[in-house]
Amino acid sequence: MVKTEYLEKAQVLIEALPYIQRFNRKIIVVKYGGSAMVDENLKRQVIQDVVLLKLVGFKPIIVHGGGKEISRWVGKVGMEPRFVNGLRVTDKDTMEVAEMVLGKVNKELVTLVESLGVKAVGISGKDGALLNVEKKYSNGEDIGYVGNVTSVNPKIIEDLLEKDFLPIICPIGLDKNFDTYNINADDAACAIAKAVHAEKLAFLTDIEGVYLDPNDPSTLLSKLFVKEAKELIDNGNVGGGMIPKLQNCIDAIEEGVSRVHILDGRIPHCLLLEIFTNKGIGTAILRKDEIKDYDVQ
Amino acid sequence: MVKTEYLEKAQVLIEALPYIQRFNRKIIVVKYGGSAMVDENLKRQVIQDVVLLKLVGFKPIIVHGGGKEISRWVGKVGMEPRFVNGLRVTDKDTMEVAEMVLGKVNKELVTLVESLGVKAVGISGKDGALLNVEKKYSNGEDIGYVGNVTSVNPKIIEDLLEKDFLPIICPIGLDKNFDTYNINADDAACAIAKAVHAEKLAFLTDIEGVYLDPNDPSTLLSKLFVKEAKELIDNGNVGGGMIPKLQNCIDAIEEGVSRVHILDGRIPHCLLLEIFTNKGIGTAILRKDEIKDYDVQ
Amino acid sequence: MVKTEYLEKAQVLIEALPYIQRFNRKIIVVKYGGSAMVDENLKRQVIQDVVLLKLVGFKPIIVHGGGKEISRWVGKVGMEPRFVNGLRVTDKDTMEVAEMVLGKVNKELVTLVESLGVKAVGISGKDGALLNVEKKYSNGEDIGYVGNVTSVNPKIIEDLLEKDFLPIICPIGLDKNFDTYNINADDAACAIAKAVHAEKLAFLTDIEGVYLDPNDPSTLLSKLFVKEAKELIDNGNVGGGMIPKLQNCIDAIEEGVSRVHILDGRIPHCLLLEIFTNKGIGTAILRKDEIKDYDVQ
Amino acid sequence: MVKTEYLEKAQVLIEALPYIQRFNRKIIVVKYGGSAMVDENLKRQVIQDVVLLKLVGFKPIIVHGGGKEISRWVGKVGMEPRFVNGLRVTDKDTMEVAEMVLGKVNKELVTLVESLGVKAVGISGKDGALLNVEKKYSNGEDIGYVGNVTSVNPKIIEDLLEKDFLPIICPIGLDKNFDTYNINADDAACAIAKAVHAEKLAFLTDIEGVYLDPNDPSTLLSKLFVKEAKELIDNGNVGGGMIPKLQNCIDAIEEGVSRVHILDGRIPHCLLLEIFTNKGIGTAILRKDEIKDYDVQ
Amino acid sequence: MVKTEYLEKAQVLIEALPYIQRFNRKIIVVKYGGSAMVDENLKRQVIQDVVLLKLVGFKPIIVHGGGKEISRWVGKVGMEPRFVNGLRVTDKDTMEVAEMVLGKVNKELVTLVESLGVKAVGISGKDGALLNVEKKYSNGEDIGYVGNVTSVNPKIIEDLLEKDFLPIICPIGLDKNFDTYNINADDAACAIAKAVHAEKLAFLTDIEGVYLDPNDPSTLLSKLFVKEAKELIDNGNVGGGMIPKLQNCIDAIEEGVSRVHILDGRIPHCLLLEIFTNKGIGTAILRKDEIKDYDVQ
Amino acid sequence: MVKTEYLEKAQVLIEALPYIQRFNRKIIVVKYGGSAMVDENLKRQVIQDVVLLKLVGFKPIIVHGGGKEISRWVGKVGMEPRFVNGLRVTDKDTMEVAEMVLGKVNKELVTLVESLGVKAVGISGKDGALLNVEKKYSNGEDIGYVGNVTSVNPKIIEDLLEKDFLPIICPIGLDKNFDTYNINADDAACAIAKAVHAEKLAFLTDIEGVYLDPNDPSTLLSKLFVKEAKELIDNGNVGGGMIPKLQNCIDAIEEGVSRVHILDGRIPHCLLLEIFTNKGIGTAILRKDEIKDYDVQ
Repeated sequence: MVKTEYLEKAQVLIEALPYIQRFNRKIIVVKYGGSAMVDENLKRQVIQDVVLLKLVGFKPIIVHGGGKEISRWVGKVGMEPRFVNGLRVTDKDTMEVAEMVLGKVNKELVTLVESLGVKAVGISGKDGALLNVEKKYSNGEDIGYVGNVTSVNPKIIEDLLEKDFLPIICPIGLDKNFDTYNINADDAACAIAKAVHAEKLAFLTDIEGVYLDPNDPSTLLSKLFVKEAKELIDNGNVGGGMIPKLQNCIDAIEEGVSRVHILDGRIPHCLLLEIFTNKGIGTAILRKDEIKDYDVQ
Repeated sequence: MVKTEYLEKAQVLIEALPYIQRFNRKIIVVKYGGSAMVDENLKRQVIQDVVLLKLVGFKPIIVHGGGKEISRWVGKVGMEPRFVNGLRVTDKDTMEVAEMVLGKVNKELVTLVESLGVKAVGISGKDGALLNVEKKYSNGEDIGYVGNVTSVNPKIIEDLLEKDFLPIICPIGLDKNFDTYNINADDAACAIAKAVHAEKLAFLTDIEGVYLDPNDPSTLLSKLFVKEAKELIDNGNVGGGMIPKLQNCIDAIEEGVSRVHILDGRIPHCLLLEIFTNKGIGTAILRKDEIKDYDVQ
Repeated sequence: MVKTEYLEKAQVLIEALPYIQRFNRKIIVVKYGGSAMVDENLKRQVIQDVVLLKLVGFKPIIVHGGGKEISRWVGKVGMEPRFVNGLRVTDKDTMEVAEMVLGKVNKELVTLVESLGVKAVGISGKDGALLNVEKKYSNGEDIGYVGNVTSVNPKIIEDLLEKDFLPIICPIGLDKNFDTYNINADDAACAIAKAVHAEKLAFLTDIEGVYLDPNDPSTLLSKLFVKEAKELIDNGNVGGGMIPKLQNCIDAIEEGVSRVHILDGRIPHCLLLEIFTNKGIGTAILRKDEIKDYDVQ
Repeated sequence: MVKTEYLEKAQVLIEALPYIQRFNRKIIVVKYGGSAMVDENLKRQVIQDVVLLKLVGFKPIIVHGGGKEISRWVGKVGMEPRFVNGLRVTDKDTMEVAEMVLGKVNKELVTLVESLGVKAVGISGKDGALLNVEKKYSNGEDIGYVGNVTSVNPKIIEDLLEKDFLPIICPIGLDKNFDTYNINADDAACAIAKAVHAEKLAFLTDIEGVYLDPNDPSTLLSKLFVKEAKELIDNGNVGGGMIPKLQNCIDAIEEGVSRVHILDGRIPHCLLLEIFTNKGIGTAILRKDEIKDYDVQ
Repeated sequence: MVKTEYLEKAQVLIEALPYIQRFNRKIIVVKYGGSAMVDENLKRQVIQDVVLLKLVGFKPIIVHGGGKEISRWVGKVGMEPRFVNGLRVTDKDTMEVAEMVLGKVNKELVTLVESLGVKAVGISGKDGALLNVEKKYSNGEDIGYVGNVTSVNPKIIEDLLEKDFLPIICPIGLDKNFDTYNINADDAACAIAKAVHAEKLAFLTDIEGVYLDPNDPSTLLSKLFVKEAKELIDNGNVGGGMIPKLQNCIDAIEEGVSRVHILDGRIPHCLLLEIFTNKGIGTAILRKDEIKDYDVQ
Repeated sequence: MVKTEYLEKAQVLIEALPYIQRFNRKIIVVKYGGSAMVDENLKRQVIQDVVLLKLVGFKPIIVHGGGKEISRWVGKVGMEPRFVNGLRVTDKDTMEVAEMVLGKVNKELVTLVESLGVKAVGISGKDGALLNVEKKYSNGEDIGYVGNVTSVNPKIIEDLLEKDFLPIICPIGLDKNFDTYNINADDAACAIAKAVHAEKLAFLTDIEGVYLDPNDPSTLLSKLFVKEAKELIDNGNVGGGMIPKLQNCIDAIEEGVSRVHILDGRIPHCLLLEIFTNKGIGTAILRKDEIKDYDVQ
């Protein structure tokens, strides 16, 4: 006789059916960063998750940052950091190192994906003129080559998806003088998700999710409607780091992304768990204040 | 924290990766019959399995028989069975009832598949002139409208697959005078698998698999090379019912199907278990006498 | 010299030119039923007509009923009819027999078409989720599994036409619980004609056409504008059986079908005669009250 | 009741079925010339025939000469004919007039076809570099700008057919110095039929067909196998004008055209009669000496 | 070392970059006539220019007149011109000659283009029913077969462009009775440019361009906005021959052509110079009164 | 009047016609390296040349090295070079820096191309699994992560060309353990040219070309047949650095590349001059010993 163990395996696969159906051929943008990028086990698990999503018919896109690698290499080449208002300035030399490090990380991810049998193509926002930017000021101060996305030209992503590649994107763009700029990876992921009309946008973070009260872990929210998210910001109930992230979530949903997730990237296979089980991981930001919309994911 | 239970679920999905990869966009013909067609639970599980295969990127095709329903309806309309050499004769009236019952079973399967969210199209070998036959004689005796497949015109199946439908086929064909014939479902499945260049052909049966010694359950074979299968037949080591089935397996492999499986349809989710775990269910008939070929399925 | 006989043949073909031109690549839905389905000669002629239409560039679709065969088989299996308000109730068992009989008729038509060299595919409204229904009540009474079409999913028909098959459809559909329902064939033909944007919808009936006065054969109408058809109904000038048929005609035209014909299916080749000669057979229901629109068909 | 007359019309259309089926989407090259080009009634009938063939699914191509129009215009502009060995010399001026006249005839045919509702495109062998030629000598004598086809570049014809136009071609070509040459229309039709892999090539002529004995009208041959045609030439049993025509027929068949017809263009609708009835008009040149091949045309 | 001469050549090619980029895959209609059609050197240069445009990625279309050739041939065949109000009447015979001459010119241009290695197809407005016309009256007087374009059916041009041919068109059309009409070549070019949504329309003329004061050569305008062009006409500041030409320019721009040029066809390579240098040749008619729009052509 | 200067410009463009025609839609692989990569003016000119080739219809691909940048950065991060047999060893750390530098150079080239209005995509041999390698040994010694190309998977390049991007490729590949390897850029360019069936492969070098006698500048060869190239190597008449380069040229031609060029990258616009003038720059390696093959390039 077949052992119970095997039947349970079959059961897990069968339970995945409605989720596979729901997202079949839909685009999912994964903002990949934080601990999940540092820990080798977590890194492998994230990539396994993304590859599985690809193979069962989804169209995932990875947008990644460079994390602590950039700082490490800036030090390695003996550069002196400069600060304005307490913010690190991305001068031309820093930008050069940052681009090199992001490129290195990008190809590492490409290699990992391909070792699992899926073809990936790693690009930056320069390729195919994907990301166009303008200088971003911090309270009016020039902090160097840090850019805001002004427009996205999604043709290269659409072409790669059509040709069945998994696009892996690092957040660098050009301004209209063809100067190179660094872009916040959350911002880049959000801009891309909107431009390709993604169904889902998932941020892998180092927090458990959004709290109603940041000081009380028991107030972790499993879902949050756009209206509520705005109130949280207005009421000052979210910490500083969370504000721009929540703002990105709100933006994405208001421009057509169906659902945005703030996931805890420290949980193994958090992406898979979020998508294939009805156990919510982290916080889902939803469009409308309707419970029934949440039934099947 | 996320419960172990969920992590185990993720693990099962991740373990399915290499199998999904291997069969991505490959055609799998499933001969569906026997107990798995009678028991409502098993029926639902088979259909769930096939639907899952479809959703994760395979191209399944179901070929089904009518099982005991045909006998039941032949009785219901008060027909007297006729026999030649102990074989039931399929006269014109019996053929008419058989076609009606197979059509009914066909649409039931279509309904089941569609209730799981996948679009199916149920056809017989008449549609698109799929199956052409000639009369089959049993030791020279005319047993009526029972046919051997003489040619397959796979365009209708290819078109349905291209348009993303799941084809469900009942084994009826036309001879050159456009008379209707019943075809053994195993034969039809085998002929179709060859014509569409299937990667896999799986027979759902009511046995555990092939035995080296039919009288000794401990001699169940998990794999069997074509050469060995031929020897089993030549040596008289397989029972009567198994000979045509084994012959179909050998035929299919010699004309290009990569692997043929004789599965025990009485095991829940036997199809999924065979494809997604390395626990072989039943007997796999393989091309060559090479162990390494068996490593990844 | 060539005999006059041959020149006359050429003349007939040449006269067909403007009609072939007018309907080239247009969709024509033929509701096939009545005597034309019982008489073997008429049946062959209808199928010849449809095959000719296909070959000269039209895109015909057949929607058929089961006629008297259903009653015959219901009796054959010894079922007791149940009645509500004098109407036969389609209970689960009756529905099962009806589906089997419609399937049998469907494949007979497929066979006939293929014997004339054209590839057909016979489907029901279950295939490709073509016909979705809800229960139909007769004056508030539940008469069983009889359905009204709530939506049509024409993809399977469009795909079959694109792949050059002739679709033959029997009027069975599923409700949202995936229960099987019988549909009036006229209703199904009308719903399909609208969904596929047919140019023409032709009902083969057992009457000569519509009469201004049902009791006076000399008042047969060769054409009828939608406005007039509505008046006939409002004035009570049409018999009971004709009302739903006329209503279907009006519906079809109001949703974009260019012309609807009520043909006398008892006339050999009535379909061909209607389309290829300017001798109107039966009654044409037309959109507007403009004579000039009628000049070339 | 429907009059017999109409039923007979339907019968004629039904009888055309097997012929329409046989040539569906096949290319038919019609060499159009002789009396059928002079008599206005015959001209209209030929064009009606070709248009009908187009509409019922064939892919006809017309290759035409200029007939007596060329001589008429050469006279009209007051040119003096020059002769070599009794053959008219096509000098530069004559060639210029010939090209103008052929162009005029070409557009007249385009107009006629379009007046029947089919879109035509008239080209010469210069367009799309269709016909490449070299100078043809008559027994070693230079007779001017008369060319032999050296190669055919069928892309323009294939493109026009794909785009559903009816190509009408006049037999003019360029040599490698880009000088203009006249080509015998029979030769051009034969070269084109071979290049586009035509199913059929029909020559409209002013004779009844091929005779076994040119002096005995009772010896008209309804069919002629390639082998026999060669014997007729070798035995000197065919008249001078017929030799190159027969040679073209033999060539065409040996390079893959299935059947070549020498039709009597003086018979109204000879093209239609040949294709849609089993009354052979003129002489069919066939590949092999097998009667059974002739059964269905 | 490489000689300066070669470096200068490279420089010229590099300077062409922005122009090639701007018009890549854009349609340019060239109305070809006047001296550039008579002088053999100019003719060759125009064709070279058009061929170059084709090869570097533009989609040129030539629309040509017959120039003085028509008059020459009308005389040659001994026809007597007839006049109405001082205007030559295009009677049936004149029309016949005109069509023949235009056909001859058309194929000469096809030959020239092909001698430079590009495939051309020469058609008239009859082919593919491209140009439909109605009779044009001159101050109410019937001047024969001279037509105004009533509609354009651009499918044949679009198909030829898609298949990579260069279309060369002579301005002849059919009215609804399928009678042949001559069309002013400027009008035909303008109608075609509008129908195919051309980016540019260039008239090769025998004047230097538009003058503010026709009597003062120093008032040649290098550009002219639509508004100004209308004022010139209203103020009577342009000569009679120029009025319909300017009107065509205005029409074309108002229906979507981006820029129209009146070029001096007597300048060698005027087309290339206009497009590839910032030396304007002749007068550009522009949409809006904005200087910045003129910067990069 | 138009100035002579402009007419000369037109003349240069016209002279480019036969070259544009010859290479239309053909693939040209440019190995970019050496001085042309260091000097900012030369760099801009090379990119202008490639962009022009793209715009006039060629399909260029750039394969580049990292030149002196790699050494500079290896020093910058304070790494100690290791040597084996006098050869620098590419250990894991060196490989990491090399990949980062190549990535940086790659995106600089992408930026330059895009600033000229053409969309580029920069990839390495990891993307789309383009370049697969195995370890290369130097006389049996392990010199670290330096690889030989074992196979090329050109799909990503073909897809980018189809989608109209200009691919820019850095020579890095993966072995079967998914370890990263550096590849000699000449080798990578040669392997890619063969895999995509390039028409032309051009090496930008820092030499004038191949000399018959390396010590005598007057023996510079403008062309060299494969047979002669082999003799030069066999006879020891070429210097050490030139041997692998010549071997690559021979390989490329023997596997189907039509012509290979060793160009002097120090000459401005050397690429354009080579392709658009009949002034040969550097040495052309040709297939056969036939002068006539060289006529038109």
